[in-house]
Amino acid sequence: MSDINRQWQVAHAPQSEGMCLERSCFGHVDAAIPEPGEGEFLIRNTHFACEPLVHAFVRGVPGRIDPLPAGAVMQGHAGGVIVKSNHPDYAVGDRVHGNMDWADYAISTGEGLQRPPDGYDLPTGMITLGMTGLCAYIGMFDIGQPKPGDVVVVSAAAGGIGVIAGQIAKLAGAHVIGIAGGAEKCARLVSDVGYDVAIDYKNEDVTARLNELAPEGVNVFFDNVGGEVLDAVLVNIANWGRIVICGGISGYDHPGMGVHNIIIMAQRNVTMQGFWYSEHADRFDEGIARLGAWVKDGSIREVFDIAQGFEATPDAARGIFSGANMGKQLVRIAEEPQF
Amino acid sequence: MSDINRQWQVAHAPQSEGMCLERSCFGHVDAAIPEPGEGEFLIRNTHFACEPLVHAFVRGVPGRIDPLPAGAVMQGHAGGVIVKSNHPDYAVGDRVHGNMDWADYAISTGEGLQRPPDGYDLPTGMITLGMTGLCAYIGMFDIGQPKPGDVVVVSAAAGGIGVIAGQIAKLAGAHVIGIAGGAEKCARLVSDVGYDVAIDYKNEDVTARLNELAPEGVNVFFDNVGGEVLDAVLVNIANWGRIVICGGISGYDHPGMGVHNIIIMAQRNVTMQGFWYSEHADRFDEGIARLGAWVKDGSIREVFDIAQGFEATPDAARGIFSGANMGKQLVRIAEEPQF
Repeated sequence: MSDINRQWQVAHAPQSEGMCLERSCFGHVDAAIPEPGEGEFLIRNTHFACEPLVHAFVRGVPGRIDPLPAGAVMQGHAGGVIVKSNHPDYAVGDRVHGNMDWADYAISTGEGLQRPPDGYDLPTGMITLGMTGLCAYIGMFDIGQPKPGDVVVVSAAAGGIGVIAGQIAKLAGAHVIGIAGGAEKCARLVSDVGYDVAIDYKNEDVTARLNELAPEGVNVFFDNVGGEVLDAVLVNIANWGRIVICGGISGYDHPGMGVHNIIIMAQRNVTMQGFWYSEHADRFDEGIARLGAWVKDGSIREVFDIAQGFEATPDAARGIFSGANMGKQLVRIAEEPQF
Repeated sequence: MSDINRQWQVAHAPQSEGMCLERSCFGHVDAAIPEPGEGEFLIRNTHFACEPLVHAFVRGVPGRIDPLPAGAVMQGHAGGVIVKSNHPDYAVGDRVHGNMDWADYAISTGEGLQRPPDGYDLPTGMITLGMTGLCAYIGMFDIGQPKPGDVVVVSAAAGGIGVIAGQIAKLAGAHVIGIAGGAEKCARLVSDVGYDVAIDYKNEDVTARLNELAPEGVNVFFDNVGGEVLDAVLVNIANWGRIVICGGISGYDHPGMGVHNIIIMAQRNVTMQGFWYSEHADRFDEGIARLGAWVKDGSIREVFDIAQGFEATPDAARGIFSGANMGKQLVRIAEEPQF
């Protein structure tokens, strides 16, 4: 075990309002490996998960997340193995994950961390049985509520949440249309993930294609994008349609043109509902149990896009805002330590 | 009884995409008074009600309302007294209202028409116990669901629906904030209608004022406007807030800048629900009974803005899109015929 603790730091916030994380937002320092105090333990991180939330940690979300000051260690979703422990409930060798320092090593009291359920490895625990899978589960099942035969559309379908949300909708018996950027991603959504069809928003007219593919209208829209994509689906929404606002990644990237078709919600009795993951914790146990069973029996295929090495972090973290990833973007920063 | 039937006609649709009804959209012809056939009756209209829907009749609503062709008799909400009847269920002297020719006289089979409930005059039947009052009732009670102590905001608060929606929210025990244009209207919303406070969007910063008036956030927003007003409320929406999309009059008038704050719905677990009046007909009987009782016992004060004379119709119909009216805009085109 090296005695250097590489840490990503917030060098500065994105310099222009319309910009996402620039490469120069990421600073990199070598620090000493910290010692856990009483009631604390030390984690050797092996993976970072690139969540849209990383943008929120740097920029802040009013009323939800204070922005990190320049010079702070960057926070993000990380997972690893405990290598020292002064905590009675956490043993050396235990795997944990959650929001912590994006660094080789992190100190924790366990607060806010989860363990992968027994029988699942760290990436599955972090992603499919973590925030990503649970956002898909809560958003699609509790809010979208697709019924057999419904037409369900998922935007950012090739993103971490999208690949799971689409598969959940298929399990519910829906006809599932993905919206993603690029012909290759769209092909993989059908061949590898199980979407019925995918629309390439970079090369196709989404409004016109939806009209062709769903002439009776879209019953459920699971939206991770917002903006023009939301407008295109609103034009094609069915009477009594339901829209789940899970994210709005088009707006994190640039302020955009806004959404112009809200009035269609009145014309077609549409319900649009947003949700903040952590306030639906009463649904986590059920979601983890069902998602876990689906992973085991192959009903849900996991799609991870794994960048290799600590230095790959900034590009991987920034890439999700331009859709560079296919499936959930992870960074593997180290081998698991052996004991 | 004169033998001339003055009819408003659609001279042309608004000529530019961003425009509302221009004065020149209204043509005016004198026709003969039609004779009712078997199963029909003839109505002598006394009132036109200026609904935002008049714009929809001329422009059309995709999937809902086909636009009227140039030269067609303008359709709109009208009410009057039956002067000839060949229909067993409708007698001379009966009062009826509904969408029909905007003309002195209209022929009907009764389909789609309502009668004012016993004990209520035609304006009350047309407005407070008609679409206007029922939109306020269904939107506020069924969808907004204000609880005692909630902060409720109503946009276009001085419009026909707004004056009733605000009073319903008061009856539910909420603290009710109106948004309207102009200091005089805002003063009247408080003094004449019973709003707790009103924000003048033409002279005040709506976002900042809402933050002052509702520091804990807005629990229910009943929206008739959309656009910038919706964005301002989204900034101030409470966690688990509910937004009712009843109308979007800012968008009928001009395409606008769009809505930019939809992502706040995810950050604060917000539900936004639109509704199309006619598909909530199962709620009409209850709504009419309760609204009627409230009118009788003075719990709801009716606010009508009545233009006088047939020729006043175009300006009255257009005025609601610029907020010229205080309360429901009606046109009184004739005295009630006496029998």
